[in-house]
Amino acid sequence: MNSAIENILTRRSIRKYDKSKKVSKEQIDTILKSAMSAPTARNQQGWYFVVVSNPKQLLEISKNIPHAKMVKTADFTIIVCYEVTDEMQKLYWVQDASASTQNILLSANALGIGSVWCAVHPREAKINFIKKEFNLPLNIEPLSLVALGYPAEKKGYEERFDEAKIQYNV
Amino acid sequence: MNSAIENILTRRSIRKYDKSKKVSKEQIDTILKSAMSAPTARNQQGWYFVVVSNPKQLLEISKNIPHAKMVKTADFTIIVCYEVTDEMQKLYWVQDASASTQNILLSANALGIGSVWCAVHPREAKINFIKKEFNLPLNIEPLSLVALGYPAEKKGYEERFDEAKIQYNV
Repeated sequence: MNSAIENILTRRSIRKYDKSKKVSKEQIDTILKSAMSAPTARNQQGWYFVVVSNPKQLLEISKNIPHAKMVKTADFTIIVCYEVTDEMQKLYWVQDASASTQNILLSANALGIGSVWCAVHPREAKINFIKKEFNLPLNIEPLSLVALGYPAEKKGYEERFDEAKIQYNV
Repeated sequence: MNSAIENILTRRSIRKYDKSKKVSKEQIDTILKSAMSAPTARNQQGWYFVVVSNPKQLLEISKNIPHAKMVKTADFTIIVCYEVTDEMQKLYWVQDASASTQNILLSANALGIGSVWCAVHPREAKINFIKKEFNLPLNIEPLSLVALGYPAEKKGYEERFDEAKIQYNV
């Protein structure tokens, strides 16, 4: 099979990480480059990424965002944000930052790195914690955070194709 | 380079299509399978896809959604929707349907098929047109539409990596 298709089909949420293997700076850059290759409304490219590798801060995320408790065992985490300054960005920034988040998951999988998408937006408490903890610049809105690291669990391809979810024409 | 990474980095918005080449049913199924491999909040997998190949309906979309006028020249279009029935889905369906849309763009690129993401949500007039024209089932919300076809324009890799958009720890 086409290996790019295989990469899309085999991506799974990985929540257990092998701390003995570190993701390299070059790999992190490739992942961020992939994140910045997603499309954006009016080609605004308003993404903003916080790369968190400080163990103390990974622990703080785990404590403050209960469904992201795996973050403390991750090698690093990318907080995906978007600069929201005008009315059009208010309409489309969630879509744009989501496409970018998906590119992070897929490029990690292509590099053999496991990842899981944890939501931040639209929960006020989570948004405020992230803005304060990471001292985000004005107008930078956090959408999601992705925990990343070499996998310590194995998940295979899962068949999800469902004809019932497809409509042809009317 | 890793071909799955290359596929992510080389995806560009393609708005001109070669009508002499048809996308096969097998390829459309691969694209839809990719769309259904995206993650969803609480693994709800609430996607719903409308595959539009009827030339009259492609023309109708072009007429009613001005920024999607390339749809009339596309081989087909996928309308990406999500079933929104509870409060949690209201919070996360846009993210989930966006990740699925991104998988469509990427799997098309992997197959040599061009595509472009056109927004539907959150514009009321566009949402109502799609719901009526395609007689969408109750609670099915359209997020985006993707025009697809063999490319009649060539776009190469565009460097978008920008260090200014990356923050390390605090």
